[in-house]
Amino acid sequence: MTTAEAATAPVPIQSTYQTHVADYWNAEENPVNLELGKLDDLYHHHYGVGAVDLSVLDEPDPVRRRERITAELHRLEHGQAELLAAHLGPLSPEDRVFDAGCGRGGGSVVAHLRYGCHSDGVTISAKQAEFANAQARKRGIADRVRYHHRNMLDTGLRSGAYAASWNNESSMYVELDLLFAEHARLLRRGGRYVVVTGCYNDTYGRASREVSLINAHYICDIHPRSAYFRALARHRLVPVHVEDLTEATMPYWELRRQADHLVTGIEDTFLTAYRNGSFQYLLIAADRV
Amino acid sequence: MTTAEAATAPVPIQSTYQTHVADYWNAEENPVNLELGKLDDLYHHHYGVGAVDLSVLDEPDPVRRRERITAELHRLEHGQAELLAAHLGPLSPEDRVFDAGCGRGGGSVVAHLRYGCHSDGVTISAKQAEFANAQARKRGIADRVRYHHRNMLDTGLRSGAYAASWNNESSMYVELDLLFAEHARLLRRGGRYVVVTGCYNDTYGRASREVSLINAHYICDIHPRSAYFRALARHRLVPVHVEDLTEATMPYWELRRQADHLVTGIEDTFLTAYRNGSFQYLLIAADRV
Amino acid sequence: MTTAEAATAPVPIQSTYQTHVADYWNAEENPVNLELGKLDDLYHHHYGVGAVDLSVLDEPDPVRRRERITAELHRLEHGQAELLAAHLGPLSPEDRVFDAGCGRGGGSVVAHLRYGCHSDGVTISAKQAEFANAQARKRGIADRVRYHHRNMLDTGLRSGAYAASWNNESSMYVELDLLFAEHARLLRRGGRYVVVTGCYNDTYGRASREVSLINAHYICDIHPRSAYFRALARHRLVPVHVEDLTEATMPYWELRRQADHLVTGIEDTFLTAYRNGSFQYLLIAADRV
Amino acid sequence: MTTAEAATAPVPIQSTYQTHVADYWNAEENPVNLELGKLDDLYHHHYGVGAVDLSVLDEPDPVRRRERITAELHRLEHGQAELLAAHLGPLSPEDRVFDAGCGRGGGSVVAHLRYGCHSDGVTISAKQAEFANAQARKRGIADRVRYHHRNMLDTGLRSGAYAASWNNESSMYVELDLLFAEHARLLRRGGRYVVVTGCYNDTYGRASREVSLINAHYICDIHPRSAYFRALARHRLVPVHVEDLTEATMPYWELRRQADHLVTGIEDTFLTAYRNGSFQYLLIAADRV
Amino acid sequence: MTTAEAATAPVPIQSTYQTHVADYWNAEENPVNLELGKLDDLYHHHYGVGAVDLSVLDEPDPVRRRERITAELHRLEHGQAELLAAHLGPLSPEDRVFDAGCGRGGGSVVAHLRYGCHSDGVTISAKQAEFANAQARKRGIADRVRYHHRNMLDTGLRSGAYAASWNNESSMYVELDLLFAEHARLLRRGGRYVVVTGCYNDTYGRASREVSLINAHYICDIHPRSAYFRALARHRLVPVHVEDLTEATMPYWELRRQADHLVTGIEDTFLTAYRNGSFQYLLIAADRV
Amino acid sequence: MTTAEAATAPVPIQSTYQTHVADYWNAEENPVNLELGKLDDLYHHHYGVGAVDLSVLDEPDPVRRRERITAELHRLEHGQAELLAAHLGPLSPEDRVFDAGCGRGGGSVVAHLRYGCHSDGVTISAKQAEFANAQARKRGIADRVRYHHRNMLDTGLRSGAYAASWNNESSMYVELDLLFAEHARLLRRGGRYVVVTGCYNDTYGRASREVSLINAHYICDIHPRSAYFRALARHRLVPVHVEDLTEATMPYWELRRQADHLVTGIEDTFLTAYRNGSFQYLLIAADRV
Repeated sequence: MTTAEAATAPVPIQSTYQTHVADYWNAEENPVNLELGKLDDLYHHHYGVGAVDLSVLDEPDPVRRRERITAELHRLEHGQAELLAAHLGPLSPEDRVFDAGCGRGGGSVVAHLRYGCHSDGVTISAKQAEFANAQARKRGIADRVRYHHRNMLDTGLRSGAYAASWNNESSMYVELDLLFAEHARLLRRGGRYVVVTGCYNDTYGRASREVSLINAHYICDIHPRSAYFRALARHRLVPVHVEDLTEATMPYWELRRQADHLVTGIEDTFLTAYRNGSFQYLLIAADRV
Repeated sequence: MTTAEAATAPVPIQSTYQTHVADYWNAEENPVNLELGKLDDLYHHHYGVGAVDLSVLDEPDPVRRRERITAELHRLEHGQAELLAAHLGPLSPEDRVFDAGCGRGGGSVVAHLRYGCHSDGVTISAKQAEFANAQARKRGIADRVRYHHRNMLDTGLRSGAYAASWNNESSMYVELDLLFAEHARLLRRGGRYVVVTGCYNDTYGRASREVSLINAHYICDIHPRSAYFRALARHRLVPVHVEDLTEATMPYWELRRQADHLVTGIEDTFLTAYRNGSFQYLLIAADRV
Repeated sequence: MTTAEAATAPVPIQSTYQTHVADYWNAEENPVNLELGKLDDLYHHHYGVGAVDLSVLDEPDPVRRRERITAELHRLEHGQAELLAAHLGPLSPEDRVFDAGCGRGGGSVVAHLRYGCHSDGVTISAKQAEFANAQARKRGIADRVRYHHRNMLDTGLRSGAYAASWNNESSMYVELDLLFAEHARLLRRGGRYVVVTGCYNDTYGRASREVSLINAHYICDIHPRSAYFRALARHRLVPVHVEDLTEATMPYWELRRQADHLVTGIEDTFLTAYRNGSFQYLLIAADRV
Repeated sequence: MTTAEAATAPVPIQSTYQTHVADYWNAEENPVNLELGKLDDLYHHHYGVGAVDLSVLDEPDPVRRRERITAELHRLEHGQAELLAAHLGPLSPEDRVFDAGCGRGGGSVVAHLRYGCHSDGVTISAKQAEFANAQARKRGIADRVRYHHRNMLDTGLRSGAYAASWNNESSMYVELDLLFAEHARLLRRGGRYVVVTGCYNDTYGRASREVSLINAHYICDIHPRSAYFRALARHRLVPVHVEDLTEATMPYWELRRQADHLVTGIEDTFLTAYRNGSFQYLLIAADRV
Repeated sequence: MTTAEAATAPVPIQSTYQTHVADYWNAEENPVNLELGKLDDLYHHHYGVGAVDLSVLDEPDPVRRRERITAELHRLEHGQAELLAAHLGPLSPEDRVFDAGCGRGGGSVVAHLRYGCHSDGVTISAKQAEFANAQARKRGIADRVRYHHRNMLDTGLRSGAYAASWNNESSMYVELDLLFAEHARLLRRGGRYVVVTGCYNDTYGRASREVSLINAHYICDIHPRSAYFRALARHRLVPVHVEDLTEATMPYWELRRQADHLVTGIEDTFLTAYRNGSFQYLLIAADRV
Repeated sequence: MTTAEAATAPVPIQSTYQTHVADYWNAEENPVNLELGKLDDLYHHHYGVGAVDLSVLDEPDPVRRRERITAELHRLEHGQAELLAAHLGPLSPEDRVFDAGCGRGGGSVVAHLRYGCHSDGVTISAKQAEFANAQARKRGIADRVRYHHRNMLDTGLRSGAYAASWNNESSMYVELDLLFAEHARLLRRGGRYVVVTGCYNDTYGRASREVSLINAHYICDIHPRSAYFRALARHRLVPVHVEDLTEATMPYWELRRQADHLVTGIEDTFLTAYRNGSFQYLLIAADRV
C-alpha cells in the first residue's frame, strides 16, 4: 500500500456543521465545476487568476461562445492550480504531498503531473472522493494519487510523511488552529505548505455584508487575514511568500458573471467585495520548521 | 460636568466597516424599534425574553390587534432590559455605569430608573446619540444620563470610574479583545460587566448559513460562544452567571414573525438558527478583578 | 470488557501531596458521609443545595431527631447530585460518562439511574474504589458502572470515548490545566463537562483566612474563580451555564452545624467564608468543542 | 521633593482582602517584631538565616536569657536583610531603590546604610508607614528614605526611576503578575529585582496542610515556586541567582520555637513544612531587561 | 513645529550594546556608503536588488571603471529603496511616515520625493542624524523631513500619527517585540509597515557560521525568519506581501565583491550564506489593524 | 536490554544545520579535549571552574610544564562535571539519567561513578557515540552507561523513565522549546534537570561581537539568558538553583590561553566576552513538576 495512513481511518464527520458541508458537496453539481472539468478531466473547485481573453464574449455563434467562455474560465482556473503547485516545489517523484480539501481531485493531478510525486487527497464528501478516485483510475495513476473520505482536521495519515501540502480554497470551512496543527504534524521538517484562500481584510474592519453573503452561499466561515498569520505562527509554519491575488482574480469574475450558462449567482457579490476592499484573494507559501 | 471623560473626545470612526455600521444606524427607522419605543419612550434595540401572551394574535380589531402585538413585543423587550439591569447591581445613586452601544438609549434609562445611578452611553451613530440625549432631556435626567457619539473601543472615558457596564446586543460589531480591554479599563476593581448577545454555537461547528444571513442583514460579525470566554479570560473579567436565553427568546420571535406591521424579514432566519442549534442567545455576567 | 480503558493502568500516585490526599480518603470515615450514604446506598462526598426543612431540629425525640436531620442533609446532598446530573444530558444508555474524583461512587450511580449510561469513576483512594465497586455489585450494575483506583489527571481511559464528565467537589485537589486537559482528551467533540466546586472569589481578593482553614482541613488547594475560566478557555471547554449556588447551599450548612452527630468542625468556617464574600459555591457546565 | 512620585497618590486599598491585610498589620504588635527592632531601631518583618548560637538557650539568668535569645534572633533576621541587600548592588548614592511591602522600614534603612541610596518604601498599613517615617526622621535620613501608605501593585511612583527593588516576604499577599508588572515599570533597564519568600514546592505537589495553616495565620496566599518563574518570565525579569535558603533558615526557627517570650504559635508549622518538603525559603535575584 | 513628537525627547541609549552600535555608526565611514551617496546625495545604508550590468567590470579605464561600478551599485541600492517605498503607498502629502533606523537619511528622502509626505527618521547615531538633517536642509526639505537622535524602540513620537513606517536593514539590531510594539503604537489603524531585512532561514536550522560572521562584522543579531512573523502577529501587524529577495540581491553582491575600492570584506560571507540556504533577504509589507 | 528506548531509533539529522554540527564533531580532534581526556579516560567537552594553580606556568621543564598545565585544566573541567553532577541528586543505582549532547561521554561516567545510576547519552555525532561506547566497554560499565547516535530533540527514549537529565554546554546548538519539551517528556514527575551553559546577557543588550565570534567558531547559536527561563517556564521545569559561574570559570580561561599546546584560538574572545559583561557562564538546576 502506497498511502502513508494509519491502521484505522478516522470518522470524517464530527459536527452538525460538517454534515451540512458534506451534504452540500455531495449534492453539488454546478456547471462551473463540472463543465469546466470535462474539458480535460481536471476538476477544479476554485477560482481562476490571470489576464482574460475577453474576445470570447464577442463570439457570434452562441454554442461556440459558451464553449469558448467555458474554456477560458477553465484556463484561468488551471492557471491558479499551476500557480499554487509551483510554490510546492521542488519535489521529486519519491516525495508525497497532501491535498487538504481535494474536492473532485484536480489539484492532486496537477501536482502529480508536475513533479511525479505521490498525493493523498482528503475530502469530507464521500461522493467527491469516489469521483476523484475514478478519475485517477481512468488516468492510470491510482497507485500514485489517492483520495480519501476523511476529515482534513484528523486525517489519520502518517506524521512527517509529507514533503508538501496545501489548501486550495478549503480553509474557510475549518478552524485554522486545528487545520495547521494537522499540516504541521503531517509535513516533514522543511516541508512546504501553500494556501490559496479568500480572506476578509482586517484593514477594512470586520466582515462586510458581501463577505457574509458569500459565507451564506457556501455555508463557510471566511477568516480574517490576520487569523492566518496568527495560526501559522502558532504551528511552526513560517511564511516565505505572500501574494495578494485580488487584482489577478478579478478578470476571472468579470468573465464569469457574463457566462450565463455557468453563473451561480454569487459573482457580483465577489466583485463588490473585492472592489470595496473588504475581501482579498491571497496566496501564502510557508515552510514547516 | 458629571461625565467622567477625557479632555478630547476620540474620533468615533476608525475603519470603512465602522462607517457602514454608523450609516446603517443613522438611517435605520424600523418600526419594531420606533413603534415600540413610542409606547413609553424607552427605545430598545434588542430582542425580548419571556413567555408571550399569544391571545394578542386573536384580537379581532385590526388596529387594536396591532397595538396589542406592539405592546406585547415591547413588554418582552423591556423584560430583557430589566433582566440585564438586574445583573448589574447592587448599585447606588453615586455609582456610574457605562452603556456600550447604547442605541437610542433605552438601556441607560432602565438602569438609571432602577438604581438612580449616572450613566454614560456610547454609540457610533451621531443620530442615535442625539435622539437619546433629547429623550434624556425630555425626562429631565440629562444631568445623570448622557449619550456620546463615540467609538466603544476607544471611549476616552475615565479609567476605573465605572461600577458596572454592559453590551446589549452590540458586541457582534466589534473585536472582543478590544472591547473587553476597554471595559476592563473603565470598570473599577470589583465592577460588574454584563453582555447579552447572540453567539454562534461551537458545539454545532462553524457559522451556519442562518448565522451568515443574520450577519449580512445587520452588517455584523457574530462571534462563536468560545470567543467570549477566551476574551473575558484575557481581560480579567470573570464570569459569575451564564444563562442560555435561547428558549426564553423564542416566543418573542414567534410573535414577531406574525406581526406584519413590524417584521424586518429576518425573523424566520433567527428561529431556524435557534432551532437547528447553530445559534444561541446568551447572557454573561462577569466581575472585573 | 465494557470499560474504555488502555491496556496498562497508570500509576495513581505521582507526588507526596497525592499520597497525603489518598491517605486522608483511605482513612476517612466521617459520619456525615457514611451515615447519610447508608440511607439509600448513595454515598455522596459533597454538600447539599436547596431549601431546608428546619422543623427537623424541633423533633423532640433525640433518636428520631438525629434520623430526621441525617435524612434531611442527605436529601439536600442528593438534590445537589441530581442538579449536577441534570446538566450532563441529554444522554442515552449507549453513552459513557466519566466521574473524576468519584469518592464512594454516589454520583455515577445517580447518572446511571437517570440516563442508563455507562460510567467510569476514578478515585485516588484504593479503599473508596473498592467500596464503590462493592456497592455497584450489590446494585447489580457492575457491568455498567465501574470505579478505578487511578489518578484523574492521567486516567489511561480512551480518548474521545465519553459523552459527559464531571468533577463534584474534587477539582480543588489538582492543577486545573492538567485536569481539563484530561477531560478534553476523554470527551468526544460536543461532549459536556460539569464541575461543582467551592472557589475563592477574586472580587474579594486573595484567599481569606477561612478559605485557608478549609484548605488545611481537607488538605486541598481551593482555586480562585478566575482560574476555572482561564483553564477552561485553554482546553476547548466552553461554558454554557454558570450558576452561583452560594445562597442555595447555605441552608445545608445552617442545618449541618446544628447536627451534633455529624459535624466535622469545619461548618462555621464555611458559613463565615460564604457570608464575607470570600468564597463561592459554583456550578459550571461547559461543552467540549 | 526627593520622591519620584506622581502628582496624585493612588488609593491603597482596592479589595476587602486588602482591608483585612491592612487591619492585620495596623493591629500587629508581635514582640518578635517589636522587641527585636528595639535593639538597634531596625524593625524587620521577616525571618532569619544563618548558623545559630544555641548557647543562648543555656544562659542561666532568665532575663539575660531572654535578651540573648532576642539578640540572636535579631542577628539572624539582620543577616537575612543584609543577604538580600547584597544582591541589590552595586548601587551608588544617586541611585533610588523601591522597597515593596516595607513594613516598619528596616529593609530600606539597611539598603541606605549599605549604598547611600535613596529609598521609597510602600506599605498598605498606614500605621507602619507612619512608624517607619518616624524612625527615618529619628535617624536623620528622612530626606533619603521615605515610606508611603500605598498599594505596592499601583504605587504611582515614577516609571524607570529605580535602580533596584525588592519584596522581602511580602509577595505572598498579592497577585504576582500585577506585582511584577509594577516592578518592571518602576525599574530602569538593567535594574535589579530581589525577592525573598516562602513558596510552596511544586515538586511536593499542591499546598500541604502546613502551608494552608501558615496562610490562615497571616491571611496570606503562598504561591507555588513555579508561579514566580512564570510571572518573572512574563515581565522581563530574568533570574541571575536563585538560592534555596530552606536549610539556612531552619536554625532560626529552631531557636525561635524555644523563645517563649517571642513565639507566635506558627513556629512548629513552619518547621514541619520545611521538613516534609512542601515548603521552601527562596531568594531570587533577577535583572530587568 | 511639524514633527509629531512628545514634549521630552527620550534618552536614545539604554544598554551597553546600544552604545557599541551607536559608536560603530558614529565612526563608520565606509566608501560603499559615502562614495555611493555622493552621486546624488541619497545616502543609503542597505544593499541593492535587481539585475546588474556586468559590463562595468570590463571598463578598461581604471578611474572610469571605479566610477561605473560605484554608479551601478548605487543604482541597485536605489532600486531597493524604491522597491520598499513602493510598498508604503498610496500616501498623500498630508501623510506622515516614520523611518526607523534612518542612517544617513536616504530612505526618508526617497519616500518624500515619491509621495510628498512628511517623514520622521530616527537613528541611534548622533552623527548620522546630524548628517541627514544637513542633507535635508541642503535639499530645502527640512520642514518636511526630519531626523532625530533617538532610540527606535522608544521614540517619543506621537501615537497613531503615522500612515506608514519601515525598517530598512535595521531590525537586526533590536528585539522585535519592542520594535513592533513601537511601530504599532505610531501607526494609525490601517497604516502600512514595511521591513527589508536579512534573516536566517529556519528551514536550514539555526544560525550558520556565515550568519554569525555577519553578526560579528556589524555587531548585530540577525533574527530567524520565524521571529518576524511571530512578533508581527503579536502586534496587530498583518502581512499582505512577502517576497524573498535573495535571488534579486545576489547580483549586487557579485559586483560588489569585485569592487576593490568599496569592499568591506564581508561580501563573500554574504554570498556563501545566501547560497548555502542559511540566509535570506526578505521584504515584508504588513498592515496595522 | 537496559535502555529505556522505543522500538525504532529516530533519524538523528533533521536539517542542514545539524549536518554541519555533526560534521564538526565527527571531525573534531582538539588536543584540549583529547589530551585532557587521556589522563583518566574521562573525556569532557566543556570548560572548567574553580581556582587555578598558576604555579604550573612556572614549571621550568617544558615537557613537564605541558603535562602540568594539561592536568590542571583537566582538574578544572572535572570539577565542573562534578559540580553539575552534584545537582542531579540524590539518585540511587536504580535510577536512570539522560545526558543530552553527551560528546565523548565523560559526563555520564561521572554521574554513574557518583550515584551508580544507569545513563543514556545522546550525541548527533556517530563518531562520538562510538568512541564513548568503546570507553564504557573498556571500563566495564557498558551495561549501565550507553551512548546513542540520536538527536537530543527527538530521542525515542521512554517517557517518564528518567530521574535526572542534563545539558552540559550543548543547549546552544538547539531550539530551547524543543529541547525542554523532550526533557520534560523524559523526566518523571519530580525529576531534576541541570544545564550548564554560556548565555548572552540581556542586561548588556543583544549579542556582542564576541558572542557572535564564539557562535562562528563552534557553529552554534548562543541564547540570551532570558530565553532559558522563558522556555523552562513553558515546559514545567521550575528552577531551584541558579548560579552565575562567570567568575569561577575565568581562571580556567586565563590558564588555557597560555597553554600553547592546547589553545584553539577562541580563548581571548571568551575572556573579553566575560569581562565586558555580554556573556555569562550559568548553571540552572530545575525540577520537573
